[in-house]
Amino acid sequence: MASADIATRELENPVDLAEYLFRRLHEVGIRAVHGVPGDYNLAALDYLPKANLDWVGNCNELNAGYAADGYARIKGISALITTFGVGELSALNAIAGAYSEFVPIVHIVGQPNTKSQRDGMLLHHTLGNGDFDVFTKMSAAISCSVARLTDPHDAATLIDSTIRECWVRSRPVYITLPTDMVYAKVNGNRLKTPLDLSLPENDPEKEDYVVDVVLKYLQNAKSPVILVDACAIRHKVLDEVRSLVEASGLPTFVTPMGKGAVNETHKNFGGVYAGDGSNPGVREVVESSDLILSIGAIKSDFNTTGFTYRIGQLNTIDFHSTYVRVRYSEYPDINMKGVLRKVVAKMGKLNAVPAPIVNNTLPDKEKKSSSQTITHDWLWPIVGQWLKPKDVVLTETGTANFGIWDTRFPEGVTAISQVLWGSIGYSLGSCQGAALAAKELGRRTILFIGDGSTQLTVQELSTMLRNKLNPIIFVICNEGYTIERYIHGWDASYNDIQPWDFANIPKAFGADDGYKSYRIKSRDELNNLFADQSFNEHKTLQLVELYMPRDDAPSALKITAQAAAARNK
Amino acid sequence: MASADIATRELENPVDLAEYLFRRLHEVGIRAVHGVPGDYNLAALDYLPKANLDWVGNCNELNAGYAADGYARIKGISALITTFGVGELSALNAIAGAYSEFVPIVHIVGQPNTKSQRDGMLLHHTLGNGDFDVFTKMSAAISCSVARLTDPHDAATLIDSTIRECWVRSRPVYITLPTDMVYAKVNGNRLKTPLDLSLPENDPEKEDYVVDVVLKYLQNAKSPVILVDACAIRHKVLDEVRSLVEASGLPTFVTPMGKGAVNETHKNFGGVYAGDGSNPGVREVVESSDLILSIGAIKSDFNTTGFTYRIGQLNTIDFHSTYVRVRYSEYPDINMKGVLRKVVAKMGKLNAVPAPIVNNTLPDKEKKSSSQTITHDWLWPIVGQWLKPKDVVLTETGTANFGIWDTRFPEGVTAISQVLWGSIGYSLGSCQGAALAAKELGRRTILFIGDGSTQLTVQELSTMLRNKLNPIIFVICNEGYTIERYIHGWDASYNDIQPWDFANIPKAFGADDGYKSYRIKSRDELNNLFADQSFNEHKTLQLVELYMPRDDAPSALKITAQAAAARNK
Repeated sequence: MASADIATRELENPVDLAEYLFRRLHEVGIRAVHGVPGDYNLAALDYLPKANLDWVGNCNELNAGYAADGYARIKGISALITTFGVGELSALNAIAGAYSEFVPIVHIVGQPNTKSQRDGMLLHHTLGNGDFDVFTKMSAAISCSVARLTDPHDAATLIDSTIRECWVRSRPVYITLPTDMVYAKVNGNRLKTPLDLSLPENDPEKEDYVVDVVLKYLQNAKSPVILVDACAIRHKVLDEVRSLVEASGLPTFVTPMGKGAVNETHKNFGGVYAGDGSNPGVREVVESSDLILSIGAIKSDFNTTGFTYRIGQLNTIDFHSTYVRVRYSEYPDINMKGVLRKVVAKMGKLNAVPAPIVNNTLPDKEKKSSSQTITHDWLWPIVGQWLKPKDVVLTETGTANFGIWDTRFPEGVTAISQVLWGSIGYSLGSCQGAALAAKELGRRTILFIGDGSTQLTVQELSTMLRNKLNPIIFVICNEGYTIERYIHGWDASYNDIQPWDFANIPKAFGADDGYKSYRIKSRDELNNLFADQSFNEHKTLQLVELYMPRDDAPSALKITAQAAAARNK
Repeated sequence: MASADIATRELENPVDLAEYLFRRLHEVGIRAVHGVPGDYNLAALDYLPKANLDWVGNCNELNAGYAADGYARIKGISALITTFGVGELSALNAIAGAYSEFVPIVHIVGQPNTKSQRDGMLLHHTLGNGDFDVFTKMSAAISCSVARLTDPHDAATLIDSTIRECWVRSRPVYITLPTDMVYAKVNGNRLKTPLDLSLPENDPEKEDYVVDVVLKYLQNAKSPVILVDACAIRHKVLDEVRSLVEASGLPTFVTPMGKGAVNETHKNFGGVYAGDGSNPGVREVVESSDLILSIGAIKSDFNTTGFTYRIGQLNTIDFHSTYVRVRYSEYPDINMKGVLRKVVAKMGKLNAVPAPIVNNTLPDKEKKSSSQTITHDWLWPIVGQWLKPKDVVLTETGTANFGIWDTRFPEGVTAISQVLWGSIGYSLGSCQGAALAAKELGRRTILFIGDGSTQLTVQELSTMLRNKLNPIIFVICNEGYTIERYIHGWDASYNDIQPWDFANIPKAFGADDGYKSYRIKSRDELNNLFADQSFNEHKTLQLVELYMPRDDAPSALKITAQAAAARNK
């Protein structure tokens, strides 16, 4: 500890490194930290209360990572603490998902003492070969920045720059915290200067140039439309998008990953565009448009119904966090935020065609039907009628995150699903983090997940109970991995699952009166549940078994799965 | 598919690559494959029945990896199938554990079509950056061999050499199987030649030289002892060890990771040596010995009660799979197997001191006690009295895998615990794989796990039910992470857990009559249970809640935890 002692003498206002780190997390808006205790992080956890941070205490690290992802999607950033080797590796799938989908998570890994590492000791949680850097290298591939805190002299600087990278680039970062470094003294006066989380400013001349090019095409377009995708949410330009939508009067569409990015009750809103899986009437407007303002696009297979876009690049302007592309002209190193602001300010009156009407009405055949079977065609508009403003709505990769395309949201709804990374089980962990964040903000959290996916991460129901969270969880009971059946193995036993008594699982996980459960097998039962005042007040965790036919799926899923199957051949 | 077509014309007896791979797995003794279905591996799964392999269908990939580890520890090798990105990353912690502890698992990852990879398509389960090699690189750090199956011409050769590496080096290997390669045609005639799984022969001259050096010291030693550790099991020299023990008459000890390596009912067996945590009387014999034959040592912190060995290198001969070390003289590139055989053949009569007696008697204070509280001091000898020959006994990292040091096993017991890697939750997944393997062999499987650890991987109870496995699972109910309390945070809430109704979880996971559960809170109740004929017949899954005091732990754990806490400072 000699170096720490020296540092202490030099410092006016020494604080322990763990406290410094956690106070920075609090400063950027984090109020609860996800993770699992392990002997290399225990001492650090003692510092959480000093920084007014709650400890969630997840059941395992993968779920904790998913939960941190969900929390970050609501609060803007989150933190995850795991232990060396065993803990951090269990979380890698969640971190890779956050990297893929631009979700900022500060992943802090409690490591053995720096001296033990230098000595290459044969410690538990190692590969037994004295290599203490191997796991850091694995995480580096899925982190936008890595900070190895091994020296008190640069540790605070590294923490500040790493949290800034996390926020600005909206991707996970990885911080190692050896057990001795927890107590290392750093300069507490640094905390008086807030972290700089501002985006780098665009070069003004370049920005003006790009804005002029955009305006030239936009003002001459006969039928321009706006198409909003995931990176508009991740890179925090939703205010600019709202201004654009309202000031322009242009028909506005979202991709599946862009769900929740705009006010879907606004008269300009025209529904989901996703190529062949689009809402009715949408393809006709988008694909005949002579100028698509594409904001934050991620044109992945599941986001485009299997690459079925029919939009020419000659008719497209792409806005991104690091570049703008007008037709085929690329403008690198420019952030869309400043460009969009100036476009809104300067664009004037534009030509606007009417948007399709989206209002959660049932398809004609469902209106006339006397069936009591809960089908996807019937369910999702009904869900749209039931949701409330500002709800947080999670949908699992599977039937749910395709079905939700047919739900028009009330104002202020946030949608969470993992359309690109698509790790099944994600949404239940994510729901825990999102519900915690939503509770801080007084919002309601609702999850739709399949019975197969629930099995991967079921223990996070326990974490929800432990933290007295009150999401409404719909478990779609349809006998297994339906999305996979549509891709391959319609009747194969590998797509079956062990049948569970989902409604009673919270009880086995120690819920006394802290939960309610329901078994819903007909349309009338679901309509009655949605009308039930006590259900809607969501005072406890509520779990709804929602029985749907094994072989039913939203049409967009069917098309996407066919495309995936063809590509696999 | 042009290359496959060409290959077909060239081949006399073409077989599809997936069939080739799976028939090789069957050939090395695998009968059931662990994993989770995913759209990039579904088509491959269709080939399992053709190779007479069962599909286990785990609830998630981490658990599947743990299960594959358990299966391999019983059967000698195992296989795991996951899907690209999301699936494989979830299993990394399990694979790293297998790498660390020398467990051979063939990890097969279903990947996107080779053409999609070459085109860098923006597919689900990718990082969205067109990099399809990033996950392979992460796994390469924890695999002893990597095979990218991208070309039908070398695929069969790669498979053969990779499975051989897995077996011979006793560590995980990683095989990519793109969706189109599943159907690629390879030369089926190769299957007529069995895989070569033999160890490389030692250089005979070198081997004789080493044997002579060993014999020189051994024959002159006054009080030699044998100390058997993990790598004796992993590197498959248990037959040689048995010969050595029986022919030499030397006192024989095991390390914690060596439990189960020798017949503990043999008169030579003297108990567990682990420095300060050794069985009574063991330190005196081992540490006063003038020659310790150390076989397959892994001198990690948890295997040595926090590095408390008091054995001089001058008194030690180390036998390993890749080298032998006599005092300070190293003999690299030589496998202990051949050396041990010749030593046994040539050693003649040796000086042998008596071994301590190990017989599962209770400590004196427990014999006299009228307490009904189930303490660790009382429990583990009682367990030893109850176990049967050939049982498979798993103990979780925590109180259980330290407690088991005080249990003398009947003959033929296999012990499974993850002393070096120490990932909590491991043993429940591993128990599923071990129970499946044990069922093939007509053996009984018994697990001791804590309530905290159970929460990480609880859904594998469902996989056991689905596969009609019948292990006996003791959940030690002691209110959280006791091993961590001993290291740091005695009363900290982060070491608490949500209280679960463990006994009813199998029911919630769909066990109809396929399970029994018990709540055991006193010594009499446990004695009665152990005497119960129907309990011992283990016809179904049985789950026993075993209530023990929160603050009680085996003494070896207390010493090890103190050492860990001191090192963390």
